[in-house]
Amino acid sequence: MNNQKKIAVIGGGSWATAIVKMLSENLETVGWYMRSKSAIDHIKKNNHNPNYLRSADVYASQLDLSSDINKMVENYDVLIFAIPSAFLVGELEKLKKSLKGKIIFSAIKGIVPETGLIVGEHFHNVYDIPYEKIGVITGPCHAEEVAMERLSYLTIACQNQENAKLMSKSLKSWYIKTKISDDIIGTEYAAMLKNIYAVAAGIAHGLGYGDNFQSVLMSNAIREMKRFIKKVHKMKRNINNSAYLGDLLVTGYSIFSRNRQFGNMVGKGYTVKSAQMEMSMVAEGFYATKSAFKMTAQNGANTPIINAVYNVLYNNKDAKKEFKKLTNKLD
Amino acid sequence: MNNQKKIAVIGGGSWATAIVKMLSENLETVGWYMRSKSAIDHIKKNNHNPNYLRSADVYASQLDLSSDINKMVENYDVLIFAIPSAFLVGELEKLKKSLKGKIIFSAIKGIVPETGLIVGEHFHNVYDIPYEKIGVITGPCHAEEVAMERLSYLTIACQNQENAKLMSKSLKSWYIKTKISDDIIGTEYAAMLKNIYAVAAGIAHGLGYGDNFQSVLMSNAIREMKRFIKKVHKMKRNINNSAYLGDLLVTGYSIFSRNRQFGNMVGKGYTVKSAQMEMSMVAEGFYATKSAFKMTAQNGANTPIINAVYNVLYNNKDAKKEFKKLTNKLD
Repeated sequence: MNNQKKIAVIGGGSWATAIVKMLSENLETVGWYMRSKSAIDHIKKNNHNPNYLRSADVYASQLDLSSDINKMVENYDVLIFAIPSAFLVGELEKLKKSLKGKIIFSAIKGIVPETGLIVGEHFHNVYDIPYEKIGVITGPCHAEEVAMERLSYLTIACQNQENAKLMSKSLKSWYIKTKISDDIIGTEYAAMLKNIYAVAAGIAHGLGYGDNFQSVLMSNAIREMKRFIKKVHKMKRNINNSAYLGDLLVTGYSIFSRNRQFGNMVGKGYTVKSAQMEMSMVAEGFYATKSAFKMTAQNGANTPIINAVYNVLYNNKDAKKEFKKLTNKLD
Repeated sequence: MNNQKKIAVIGGGSWATAIVKMLSENLETVGWYMRSKSAIDHIKKNNHNPNYLRSADVYASQLDLSSDINKMVENYDVLIFAIPSAFLVGELEKLKKSLKGKIIFSAIKGIVPETGLIVGEHFHNVYDIPYEKIGVITGPCHAEEVAMERLSYLTIACQNQENAKLMSKSLKSWYIKTKISDDIIGTEYAAMLKNIYAVAAGIAHGLGYGDNFQSVLMSNAIREMKRFIKKVHKMKRNINNSAYLGDLLVTGYSIFSRNRQFGNMVGKGYTVKSAQMEMSMVAEGFYATKSAFKMTAQNGANTPIINAVYNVLYNNKDAKKEFKKLTNKLD
């Protein structure tokens, strides 16, 4: 009997493509589901994804590509979900095959808008997947730098150490280092919250605040993130580890971050709607803000940054005035 | 009797100029010592410093400019030192007037090379100034953004709360917010250590590491800074406050930082000597590295980043190999 667990990636975007590339360094075959049949055909001929992360080489000979998600679920033991959180429910509705017994890793970094849950919780609550079969793959990691094979560090969180080790072994290579954690809730919330703080950084930049303020904002953001996560899932964690602080920084300081770009447009005076229409990609931070605000209203965490972003994005508050108020709450 | 304490700035560089500008928002007269008589003449005529931070308006009518440090010490109650740490001993050797009774604030962010002490300790040990009359002014704050009147946050550390409040009141304005702390040792070490981490960030960038690695480096740097400062001066502090983490970020992410530029040149293959000769300004991180390495060898703090930078700058180790080894010690 072959004990080797078969791994498939669900998603056709940049991060999914980067994960496929990383897995291809180690696995003979990587399952890869994406909706677009034409993208699959292109990859089979040209060994790169035509729509996202084109610069990453992915070799068709190693790939089991399919636009049928049920085939993937049937044939693979481990499923890595790497699609925008807003599309997750829609994809899962296609399922006719059971997820029972599957190991699910989330590489989504967002909240499921329909349920307001992080991805791990969604699979646990809605599909009854036990937490020991749920894991999280988190950065700090821009997909673009994976394509360039620049040294990056991933954190693999799973309560079951065997599953964490399996994923770690499958992803690491000469340009990828991995670290194992058992904080699936905290790492996933961090990955989601950092997108809100990247929106905040973008708004501040759009309003004309400079680098001095940005560093104060990030220093307050990591303290706010710590308070938030502690309310949700109290355990011993060092918030300055790469999966939390590192992930915040790589996004909050990246001028390529969609969330930061979205915030920047809002700061510069675009309405939320027009900023969203200008952007062809989804800014996870937009959905995350709504869910996080709701949670913080319930759990009582002190989160002035989330509140300010919420007021700008959902309450039609003037960004300039709202951030001016925010500056008095930071230190 | 007039209880108003008179404040003077010692130094003619960018940061000194920024501090003079901030004080000028509040004080009728600001004392300002610099060595260069021609710069003083220029400021008197043109209301800006000709050599550093030219864009900052400083009004001669508010300034008591002098190239005689003894005159300043005689006439002023509070002295803010804002000169490169390498020049401090030389300036202090000129003193004929006693510093007894003076309140000394350090805005130096470095180590005194001759004694290996941070500035506060130097004044305490060599000039017998009691710690309650010693304070620290720290960022995160690029002088350039003060010139542009962009919102910035300063931390004023002093064990004597009255002195801290006096300085806070004198510096704050519509674009400067201030926070008071009693951690004079920790904030000053943070200000010094962050320069080493900025050199490290520069070396990494020069070697071709990307943003993913930079965020891991900063995340490890703040944990290393915490370990280091805890060994030197144990007290309750939140290392993620702006004076520590914020200051690290504003320097470590700034492409204008002299320390980062210096490191970048070394990473790109310049010898340490030639990189120093190329730069007309002093990179504080160079001296800080030597002192910090010595201290860490004695106090046993685990500081892989400081050690790697030391080996490159002082042990003639190959930057590429040394940083490759370092990457295995980070997570």
